[in-house]
This record gives sequence, structure tokens and C-alpha cells, in this order.
Amino acid sequence: MTDVLRTDDSATAVLDSARRARTAAADLAPMSRGSKDAALHAMADALEARVDEVLAANLKDVEGGRADGLSESLIDRLSLTAARVTDMADGLRQVATLPDPVGEVIRGYTLPNGLDVRQLRVPLGVIGIIYEARPNVTVDAAGLCVKSGNAVLLRGSSSARHSNAALATILDEAATAAGLPPYTIQLVPGDTRESVKHLMTARGLVDVLIPRGGAGLIETVVRESTVPVIETGVGNCHVYVDAAHPSVDEITAIVLNAKVQRPSVCNAAETLLVHAASADAVLPTVLAALSGAGVTIHADARAAEIGAANGVATVPATDEDWSSEYLSLDMAVGVVDSLDDAIAHIRRWSSGHTEAILTESQQAAKTFVSRVDSAAVMVNASTRFTDGGQFGFGAEIGISTQKLHARGPMGLLELTSTKYVVTGEGHVRA
Amino acid sequence: MTDVLRTDDSATAVLDSARRARTAAADLAPMSRGSKDAALHAMADALEARVDEVLAANLKDVEGGRADGLSESLIDRLSLTAARVTDMADGLRQVATLPDPVGEVIRGYTLPNGLDVRQLRVPLGVIGIIYEARPNVTVDAAGLCVKSGNAVLLRGSSSARHSNAALATILDEAATAAGLPPYTIQLVPGDTRESVKHLMTARGLVDVLIPRGGAGLIETVVRESTVPVIETGVGNCHVYVDAAHPSVDEITAIVLNAKVQRPSVCNAAETLLVHAASADAVLPTVLAALSGAGVTIHADARAAEIGAANGVATVPATDEDWSSEYLSLDMAVGVVDSLDDAIAHIRRWSSGHTEAILTESQQAAKTFVSRVDSAAVMVNASTRFTDGGQFGFGAEIGISTQKLHARGPMGLLELTSTKYVVTGEGHVRA
Repeated sequence: MTDVLRTDDSATAVLDSARRARTAAADLAPMSRGSKDAALHAMADALEARVDEVLAANLKDVEGGRADGLSESLIDRLSLTAARVTDMADGLRQVATLPDPVGEVIRGYTLPNGLDVRQLRVPLGVIGIIYEARPNVTVDAAGLCVKSGNAVLLRGSSSARHSNAALATILDEAATAAGLPPYTIQLVPGDTRESVKHLMTARGLVDVLIPRGGAGLIETVVRESTVPVIETGVGNCHVYVDAAHPSVDEITAIVLNAKVQRPSVCNAAETLLVHAASADAVLPTVLAALSGAGVTIHADARAAEIGAANGVATVPATDEDWSSEYLSLDMAVGVVDSLDDAIAHIRRWSSGHTEAILTESQQAAKTFVSRVDSAAVMVNASTRFTDGGQFGFGAEIGISTQKLHARGPMGLLELTSTKYVVTGEGHVRA
Repeated sequence: MTDVLRTDDSATAVLDSARRARTAAADLAPMSRGSKDAALHAMADALEARVDEVLAANLKDVEGGRADGLSESLIDRLSLTAARVTDMADGLRQVATLPDPVGEVIRGYTLPNGLDVRQLRVPLGVIGIIYEARPNVTVDAAGLCVKSGNAVLLRGSSSARHSNAALATILDEAATAAGLPPYTIQLVPGDTRESVKHLMTARGLVDVLIPRGGAGLIETVVRESTVPVIETGVGNCHVYVDAAHPSVDEITAIVLNAKVQRPSVCNAAETLLVHAASADAVLPTVLAALSGAGVTIHADARAAEIGAANGVATVPATDEDWSSEYLSLDMAVGVVDSLDDAIAHIRRWSSGHTEAILTESQQAAKTFVSRVDSAAVMVNASTRFTDGGQFGFGAEIGISTQKLHARGPMGLLELTSTKYVVTGEGHVRA
């Protein structure tokens, strides 16, 4: 693993913090579940004990955000209250209840020559998280990294700088006082774009980067990072209604749930595809329901025609619509001539997050499941279920849309690597 | 997944082949084990039936290599014989006997709300392999990719261009005739550096790149690729002799095996560290044995002194020696004052491949195993055992020295990703 040398001060500061993290990671890796859980409780208690400090820091960010003209929805994401701090603390206590993945023997056997081979789960080492203006990510990510035995370098948005600094300081002090290595939890120094760049090129010091945020952020990290990256959270999710469709009520309930229950999240649906044989039966009701829920419908010619015939206004869909992760009350709607056309559309435009088929046909479900190349495929269920909490993981660091290392919701297991331990009695290779 | 557009012809040719591979991968993913195994046998039979074609193509490469002044060891790696072709064919037949990883249910459970969640193994999709002048890699990699349901883009060395073209053509023709999708096995068109570059940036078309070769090749791919990379095969492996050392005979046998049995491979040892308390008992015999086997010993001051006192000549070790993957009859030898110093030395200089501790102490073994951060850690065994064949995987595409996705010997399992399949009955999220 090649070390990295740079000259300017910003680089030095980032690389120094990465080196401290690496030392912390070495000391943290062998620690017991008991020590890590005690630290998680100490971190939770410290957040609650020092809530005034957190809120005072957060107020500075919120005032700065208003002065900078941030939208109310961004201000809402940024704002903390005593209740939100308690929620974050409870999140840490919840992580303490989860099983420790480290040390699990994944494979273990004795070879014919008597060598004992075991493959064990070990921490990844140093994890860098790059995220946007949500201070709760600082706490959630720190908790999951501590539990899985990893040191963490947190790089939040500059608009949350005071909140993140207060939170990271409180968490690291509490963790250290509880016996974890110092610098297990660090904010990346500096909030310029340069500091992100240094983090992305700290290969050999940082083991993985997890960008959490919009497509632009993730694209930049993927392009510029020499540290391995796990892409998360871009969701251009599809719902496909098959020729052998379930009841219109069931379809309407799933489409509405997938689109409008929480449109700003990555597992919300963005495109509805309907088999031509089902369009006349299904679309009048579904389009009216979407429109009634305030959704702007971006329709292809056939869907638009059915909308018009049923008094539902639509706007024309373009390629930009098919490729969009709206994260808003917009939905692209198209009519397709076959299951294969639906699969081809999805393979072309999907971000690889979650797609759903609504069908009564076992064969159609099987074909869809095996040929759609996404992290999660739903049969007769809403796309909104792709979520670590829903899947029963207890916690989630993000949802991977890539195929390497982790795919879909990432819990504690996905924050580990493995190591082979081979024990002999003087064995040499013949 | 963003598609990639470029303008020049070399880019077009590479990206077109990647698009063909992506189509092949979609059709290959759902195929049964029976179909894939039949194709592997057809590929093996075709290699043997068309051996004259392979050898004629290979002769052109060998003659070209001699004209270009390639070393005899490189010419030997490049050269094929009828026997070597039969070995490659038998390798394919062996892969056919291995279990198919695709479709394995890794996790499966029913959630309290009745949703059925299954995590299945699926192929990665399109795998790019970049390798040096070993035509057997063309066949081995194609076989492992076919068995694991992946399309493969092979980018070998230009010095093996005729051999690789003949082999890839024969394999793809046989696979297609046996019913696999066309273009499952392709050589990357063009053997300029440009073509590698286009492969490395075909993000969204190629799912993973596996460079197999020297440190320079791997460093370049890691730096320039936007496609996820799995680093393989750079091995600066260490043997550490503890204070509580086993017999000198056992140590000598392991050190000799690790260093001289096959010095050109990644799991050969490059550095020997000896605890100061053991140096006088161990080093005279071990240094004499190494020297007797033709090894040049690059010694630190204390090891050099013991060598000199026992009539074994050494040369001084520098930082370059500690960081070297010699792949030759050279070994760096140092004396350390403690187990912790040995671990610190290894953490500083190792490439993260394989390290061995030779000790009678359970406690020392435990500390070494938990604190050394490498893919494989051996206790009282030679470093040479880190190998997919030795570990019983049946075949190996390389040895990963990174922590993401796969670590250590990579067999068929490591050529897969996973997919969540969630089945409901009209489930919506509350």
C-alpha cells in the first residue's frame, strides 16, 4: 500500500488526520464487542448531556443557511432540536444492541495436509463518508463505524460545519473516555473542495469512501477518487405493470405508495411502465390517483392519450424524464408492448437501485427478477421497501447501487472485509 | 448507470465491444449450470481440436518476442506447446466440475409484515481482465467468467496478440456453438495503450476490472480507472520468527520454502524478521541455508553482524529492500526488538498479501493474527499456501490485496455480486 506525499497545507492536514485514523483503526480492530458497545452508550449519553452545545452550534449553521438563502426544505434537514438529538442518541443505543460482525468465521475447514483455514470478518479499517447537510449522518455513520470496528473520517457539508464539529468532538471525546483509541471519529479538516480531493486520493490510508448524496456528488467522487468507492443512493426506480396485472386497487395503492409516500428518498419510484394490454384497464384510475395526489405526470404518447380521454392532464415525457431521479412529485409514465420492452427500458435508464413488477404471472415475475439488473427487485410490493431498517438490518449506512462489495442496503456486515488465518505445524508447500 | 460517449475510433471499437459484452451478460446471467458446463467442455474440446491453429499463432508471437529481444524467461511464459494447450483444456474441464455460485441464496427470511426477502448470488456482469504475456490467462479467465455467468473482456499483452486472438476466437466460437450468447468472450480490440484507457473508463458498461501483473500495471489501472478495480497479486510477504521460536529445523524449512521454492510468484516471501532474542539461535543456520540456496541476503546491521560472524556474506538493506517485491533470489533480513516492532514493520512495508509468524506462543500468534492487516496470515506455515488451489477453491482468478469485495485468493464466489428479491402480495410501506 503506497503512502501518499503532498506538499500543501490542506493536503497535510487531511493526510495527517487519515494517518491518525489508520493508527486508531489498528488499535480498534481487535477490541471486543463489550468495549465498543460501552463506547456507543457513552457517546449517546454525551450527546444528551451536551445537547445545549449541539443546539448552539446548530443555530449558527441554521442562521448561516438562512443568510445564504438555503431553501426551507434544506433548512429543515439541517435543523436540530432536543428531540432530534435524543433520536440520534437512541440510534446509537440501538446499534449497540446489534450483533458484532467482527470475528465471525465465514468459512472454516481443515485441508487434507492438516492446515487449518479460517476466513474471518475483520473491519475494513478507515472509512471516509462524504455527505450533504444532514447532521444526523455524522452520528449514524460514527455509530455504525465504531460498532464494526472501523475508524471514520467524516466529511459533511460546509453548511453544517458547526453542527458537525460539535457532534464529532462530543462523540470522539466520549468514545476515547470510554476506552476506544483516540481519533476513531474525526471530521476531515477544512471544508473546501480541496479537502475532499485529498481525502479521495489518500489511497493506502483510507480503505473505502462512501459518498452519500445527489448524483453529482457521487459522479465526482467516482471520477476523481483513487480510493475504492461504494456508490450509494441514486434511485431512478421503476414500477412495471404486467399484462397479467393484479387488481387496479392493488396497483393504485402500490404506485401511490412508491411515488408519493415520501418522494424525496432514493427508493421512491420515478417511472411507471404499463403493458399495452393493461393500459386501458389500469391507467385511467392510476393516473387520476397520481394527479389527485399532486403528481405531475410526464407521459409518453399512449399514456397521454389515455390521460386526456379520462380528463387527466399530462406533460410530454422526454429522454430526460426517463433518466431523471426526480425526488419530487413528478412521475414519468409510459406504455410498453411487452415484458421484454419493459426490461429493456429499465436496463437502459435505471440507476440499478430498485424496480418492481406487479403481476399475477409466475413466469413474468421470474423473467423480470432474473433479467432486471438492479440491487433489489420487488414482486407485487412497493419500491419503498428497499431499506436497511425495513429489511431488518437494524441500521443502514446507505444503499449501494454498484455490484462490487455490497449491493442494496448496507448494514454492519457490509462495513467489514475478511482475512484468512491459516494455522499449521511447520507446514511447507510441496 | 451512465453510458459513455467518445469520438475517436479506438474508443468506439472498445466501447462497442463493451456494449456487446453487456448484451451477452444479460443473456448469460439466467443460464443454467448445465448450459455453462456444456460450453466449458465444448471450449476445451475446441482448443484441443484446433491446437495447430493455436501453436501457429503462438509461433508468430514467440518469433516477434525474440526479434524484440524479450528475455528467455518471458519467452518461456509466452510459449505454448501441445501439452500446455491440453493443460489449458483440462483446466476448463476442471472448472466445469465446480459448483455454480449463481443463484445461491445467501440470506432468506420472511419479514413480520409477510414480505419474503431473499439475497441471491448473481453474476457481476462484464468483467475486464488486463494481464501480461501469459496466454494461459486468456483461457483460465474465460473459463472462470463463463462458469460464474459473466461476459469477459480480455486485454492481454501486445506481445501475445496472435496467441490471444486465436484462443479467444476458438473459445468464443465454441461457446456460441454450444448455446452461450455471442460475444461472451472477447478480446479488447486494439493493443495500444489507448485501448486500455478506454476499457478503464467504460463505467456503466464494464462492472469490474481485474489487473493481473506487476505493481506498475496495477498502479496505473487504480489511478486511471473509473470502473471499479480489484487489485491483485502484489506480494511483499514477510516471515517473522518470534522470541518463542519453533525448532531451527522447522524455521529453516519454512523460510527456504517461502523464499526459494518458487521465487517468481506473489506468495513467495521477500523479508525475514527475527526477534532479537532468537537471532543468535536462528540466524546462523537460516542465513547459511539461504546463502547455500543462492539467495542474496540484504541484511540490517544486526543480521549482517551475525552473518559475518558465521561466514555468510550479506549486502546492506535499505528502505528500498523493505519495500521490494523482489520476485527473485533476494531476501531482506532484519532483527527486531519485539513482536510489536515486527508488526509495525509489516504494517509499514507490506503490500497486504501474506505474512507468517513462526512461534510456539499462543499469545504471540493471537496478537500477530489480529494486528497484522493482510489478506492472509499464516501461523507456523509457509507463505506459499496463499493460493486458490491450495485453499481448495478449485480455481483462482487472482489474489486480491485490497479489502473491498474480495480479499485473498479469488475463486468463483468472488466473481459474483448479489441481488435482493422481495416478494409481496400488494405490500405498501406504512
